[in-house]
Amino acid sequence: MIRRISTILIACFSLVLADEGMWLMSQIEDLDLNSKGFEIESKAIYDEENPSLHNAIVWLGGCSAAFVSSQGLVLTNHHCAYGSLQRASAKDGIDYVRSGYLADDQTKELPAPGQYAYVLNSIEDVSKDVFKAARKASDLTQREILIKKKIRDIIEETEGNREDIHCKVVKLFEGQEYRKYTYTKYRDVRIVYAPPESIGKYGGDIDNWIWPRHTGDFTFYRVYMGPDSLPASYSEENIPLMVNNWLKVATEDLKVGDPGFILGFPGVTTRYRTAADIEYSLEYLYLPYIQRYRDYLCMIEDIYKKDPDARMRLASVYAGIANYMKKYQGNVDGFQKTNFIDEHLQMEDQLKSFVNSDKKLKKRYSHLFDDMNTLMEEKKGYYEYDSILDGFGYYSGTLFYLANKAYENAREREKPEADRDPDFSEKRNREFVERAKYRFYSYYEDYDKQVLEYALNKAKNAPDGFYFFELPADVNLWVENAYKNTKLADYDYIRDLFGMRASQIESLDDPIVQLAVKLYAPKLEKKERMKIWDARMNELREQYMELLAIYTRKPQYPDATGTLRFTYGHVEGYSPKDAVYYKPFTTLSGVIAKNTGEEPFDMPEKLATIKDPGNYIDPELNDVPSCFLITTDITNGNSGSSVMNRKGELIGLAFDGNYEAMTSDWMFLPEIQRTIAVDIRYVLFITDKFAGGTWIVEEMMNDQ
Amino acid sequence: MIRRISTILIACFSLVLADEGMWLMSQIEDLDLNSKGFEIESKAIYDEENPSLHNAIVWLGGCSAAFVSSQGLVLTNHHCAYGSLQRASAKDGIDYVRSGYLADDQTKELPAPGQYAYVLNSIEDVSKDVFKAARKASDLTQREILIKKKIRDIIEETEGNREDIHCKVVKLFEGQEYRKYTYTKYRDVRIVYAPPESIGKYGGDIDNWIWPRHTGDFTFYRVYMGPDSLPASYSEENIPLMVNNWLKVATEDLKVGDPGFILGFPGVTTRYRTAADIEYSLEYLYLPYIQRYRDYLCMIEDIYKKDPDARMRLASVYAGIANYMKKYQGNVDGFQKTNFIDEHLQMEDQLKSFVNSDKKLKKRYSHLFDDMNTLMEEKKGYYEYDSILDGFGYYSGTLFYLANKAYENAREREKPEADRDPDFSEKRNREFVERAKYRFYSYYEDYDKQVLEYALNKAKNAPDGFYFFELPADVNLWVENAYKNTKLADYDYIRDLFGMRASQIESLDDPIVQLAVKLYAPKLEKKERMKIWDARMNELREQYMELLAIYTRKPQYPDATGTLRFTYGHVEGYSPKDAVYYKPFTTLSGVIAKNTGEEPFDMPEKLATIKDPGNYIDPELNDVPSCFLITTDITNGNSGSSVMNRKGELIGLAFDGNYEAMTSDWMFLPEIQRTIAVDIRYVLFITDKFAGGTWIVEEMMNDQ
Repeated sequence: MIRRISTILIACFSLVLADEGMWLMSQIEDLDLNSKGFEIESKAIYDEENPSLHNAIVWLGGCSAAFVSSQGLVLTNHHCAYGSLQRASAKDGIDYVRSGYLADDQTKELPAPGQYAYVLNSIEDVSKDVFKAARKASDLTQREILIKKKIRDIIEETEGNREDIHCKVVKLFEGQEYRKYTYTKYRDVRIVYAPPESIGKYGGDIDNWIWPRHTGDFTFYRVYMGPDSLPASYSEENIPLMVNNWLKVATEDLKVGDPGFILGFPGVTTRYRTAADIEYSLEYLYLPYIQRYRDYLCMIEDIYKKDPDARMRLASVYAGIANYMKKYQGNVDGFQKTNFIDEHLQMEDQLKSFVNSDKKLKKRYSHLFDDMNTLMEEKKGYYEYDSILDGFGYYSGTLFYLANKAYENAREREKPEADRDPDFSEKRNREFVERAKYRFYSYYEDYDKQVLEYALNKAKNAPDGFYFFELPADVNLWVENAYKNTKLADYDYIRDLFGMRASQIESLDDPIVQLAVKLYAPKLEKKERMKIWDARMNELREQYMELLAIYTRKPQYPDATGTLRFTYGHVEGYSPKDAVYYKPFTTLSGVIAKNTGEEPFDMPEKLATIKDPGNYIDPELNDVPSCFLITTDITNGNSGSSVMNRKGELIGLAFDGNYEAMTSDWMFLPEIQRTIAVDIRYVLFITDKFAGGTWIVEEMMNDQ
Repeated sequence: MIRRISTILIACFSLVLADEGMWLMSQIEDLDLNSKGFEIESKAIYDEENPSLHNAIVWLGGCSAAFVSSQGLVLTNHHCAYGSLQRASAKDGIDYVRSGYLADDQTKELPAPGQYAYVLNSIEDVSKDVFKAARKASDLTQREILIKKKIRDIIEETEGNREDIHCKVVKLFEGQEYRKYTYTKYRDVRIVYAPPESIGKYGGDIDNWIWPRHTGDFTFYRVYMGPDSLPASYSEENIPLMVNNWLKVATEDLKVGDPGFILGFPGVTTRYRTAADIEYSLEYLYLPYIQRYRDYLCMIEDIYKKDPDARMRLASVYAGIANYMKKYQGNVDGFQKTNFIDEHLQMEDQLKSFVNSDKKLKKRYSHLFDDMNTLMEEKKGYYEYDSILDGFGYYSGTLFYLANKAYENAREREKPEADRDPDFSEKRNREFVERAKYRFYSYYEDYDKQVLEYALNKAKNAPDGFYFFELPADVNLWVENAYKNTKLADYDYIRDLFGMRASQIESLDDPIVQLAVKLYAPKLEKKERMKIWDARMNELREQYMELLAIYTRKPQYPDATGTLRFTYGHVEGYSPKDAVYYKPFTTLSGVIAKNTGEEPFDMPEKLATIKDPGNYIDPELNDVPSCFLITTDITNGNSGSSVMNRKGELIGLAFDGNYEAMTSDWMFLPEIQRTIAVDIRYVLFITDKFAGGTWIVEEMMNDQ
């Protein structure tokens, strides 16, 4: 209908409308927050010179979090802590995921294996250095390589060999800027309180991405430091980290319409892309991956039927795959529902007219669309071949993945410096090997076998076969034998493998290692080919973003890069479809109403019988609030982000987006895009009244 | 939660709260409509002495309808006209269900086979006569028989042998009153405009009972009379019925909160029953019938796969079964969601305390609960046996059903008058045989076979076998042969069969007839046994309703009996679950948004391209309204009922209830129970702007 089309056109072309934007720290002061109802000054949120609210924000390496007491207490999502809970479970033989964990006091806090906490020290514009290094480039591909090398050098220089410093340099505005983020890395993180899965993951995959939501998606961690006040690995002697900046809990009840903001680490967005890009993602990413993920999930479900205990190992693998499958499906549905691609094409037509209306613009930009389309077509030509190759990657089993990585590392290390991949870093490799240990907490042989077999079968069933090496005649038999004869399931062996030279690895009599060796050449060919493609496309994307700025005449925010961003909005419901309105608060009554007693709607019975909910009752709702909606602009990586009110006080934790706006990585749709947050009052109610973790709440309140 | 429980307690015990009630015409004047925002006087709706609005209301023998022009134009639901559309399709070999039908002008109106229209002439209290006749009874069973005989006599006396008079006497207030309804029956009804199924049944079984709804569930009929102004069978010479009372279309746009009322023919409710009754229905009716209906639907779906044309014959059978299956499932879900049975038990406990608190009450009523429970337990004891027997009924195939009915009729006819079933009526039998003709429009041999086989298999697999006669060893083979050798698929033969004596039928060499003969004895035994049971239970139910009146001290309305009732309410949305609010209007945009191009969401493309929607746009919605919600109290039978505004003008047609309140036949839940109506503006928009049936709209408007 006419109404819908115009909504989207407006949404897209006035780019910064409503509460859109994942803003850099340096951009906050330009947002005129006071005019939007905020009482906190922008300088109180981010001040380059002085400590400010942003110093309370913690990166968990994938998720976001924040300090909530002076003693290093950290609040994040339950689903962010899921992996460490699962690893702790595997280690102790107690299913903490299912039961939850409450430390009786600070001394009983449980190590969170593989969980690090990163505290941001500084943000620095390094564009000049990077561009200077790139100047000598003879072509686009070399330019990209020089940029990447410069970035690597900056990181190495900043980190040195220090275990406690982590540095990240990101490309912003499609390459118009580069920024360096430097963190202190804390390696001793402990679980203070995690609710049982039946609260923390209530609604499970069914409710995932869905509003109305009733998930108590939170966990308390604590960051520890050595007795010398420096970051340290886990030790009994370590003491809680003393911090100067932490978030205070809101003292007023949250209401519909209240302004709020989020500081967190959104991972990836692609807001400045063309219809060709979107179409490619639909046809060559989302649709095939939905199928692939569905197959993986079926494998795990079949395993669960045979071995219910497999859940303790595979639950987080399952959750991760299911989460992305639903996200992709949401994109597919969203594209269809909003005529996404057609309308992007229409918008591009308008943009083309704009370009053609001006000589200068025409000269610089008119080639853009055809050039980008040509590149996309080129990529499509390789799709079938590349997708088989990509099948041998992260999801093709822990053993193959590690063998492949070890061999690639060895080959890279032995190249002359000039030819070496600029992303290659011995420090990152060491960190990778360290983390690989935790992958084994999710290792389940039967699943590992099946996914490798799946990749091999895909290769085998490709129209022209898979033409780099001869595939085994009986894939199933080959895999069975391979897993019988491989030593890769032993982490110590993996550690050794990563220390070997390429020739040593090549001579190993291990079928899975040999598979990795055979796949090296085609994978390298693809990588080199994509380097050239990327360099050309990146150049075009930079110009496209430039053009959009000229056309819209609005301030732009860069695509998400996993670094600290600011987004603001207000508490508001939305209309997901004709005649339906979603209110922005759910309640404890709603939690109880959803209970069926069967997973994932199997809340602890105790929840229904708490007689004194204390001051966690919202006077307007006349109930304990559970989750709320806010119009802020987030994506994956923002999980665990604190949500603050007009005064900068903590009102909740962002943990999800809504299904109706699943296309949000491509475009912000102000009418329907919402952040789903768990209300701080529910967090405290569960901790205090349900779990009896009153001491944790008191620790926070004493620091108000 | 406490909140929910109290809601239901209030809803039930203050019986007449909010907009509850299916009121008798004689009760309207006590409702104080003016205080509820109505401008129309109660006398203008129903006046025993003078023509009033209720004279515009038409009964379609199962559905409701109303005159909307002076020339006998009638508006009802599409799903009420579905059967006649299907029969017309079968007759003409054109799929009117799929394509819809628009008469170019009055002369092109299409006969609606098997459709009659009943216009109410009078309502009369016949309680005195009935009670007088019952006085001589020696026991409860005989009392019931005497009452039924008296009712039969009243009907026969009123109707005589006239084809154009239809009389119905109903028991009200569980037997505290009896009323006689006399109708003129019109037998020439024609289709003026029926939208295509993709509008009239848009959303199909998926959206059935569901809000938000986007179904254009309406059809225009016209009632014809003979040139002598008397009811007549179809003839080309017939002329449109001239009427003095018809509904005028609302001149103002309908708004949220507006009051409205409905006049229609609700079929059956059971609002004054105990938990034991509800529990019995859950365990012994809803749950097994859901299973049985699911099996039937699977059979039809399998047939569709083999023969898509079967749809033209089986569509209305399928729709009917699917509709009830969903209704039963909704009851099951509703019982669970609202703790329905437990809370009824709690209410009964309060009622018991009330009874025990007073000597007189105790004496008269304290036996009630135990006695009713004893009867229910007795019935349960027969359940397994009876359910097998019931399997040989309406749904066990057209051929068996008709043979069974013919033989039962013959046996009944030959009994001495004193022993004869008081429900037996030669006139009703003639009408039955007449209607049987139309059953053959839905006759599909393969389905007929399968359902009979299904009943036989159920009998065969009963724990102790089925002990009235020997079942065939190979049921499938027996059915195949039976259908090869039977003559019952010939309507003329059926007509003959209904004229035969019992002994003649017994001697027929027809396997299906023989099956009916064999089943006569056990079916009779069950009938006689249930007569006694019913008499006892009815007595208790009458007392129970009496007791409720004493306890609640509120005016009561009688359970629905398929006769004219009045219900009022106001346009209002509802909250189906935590954080969700359903607004009371859907729109044309919503219709379009639901379109997937695939049945049942396959709206005609033209709908999206109508550029001039005329004055059917609602200024507040800024869109053409599609359906709306109103808090009126309806049930099956109300389908097609006109909804009127505060002035008594037509605003829409009721066509459904909402899934959340599917337990409404047992109890009105004011917070969630809504009538779903198609907006008159959508009816006219579709007729005028979509179909081009402007002349129909003009006919109505000329009569304003």
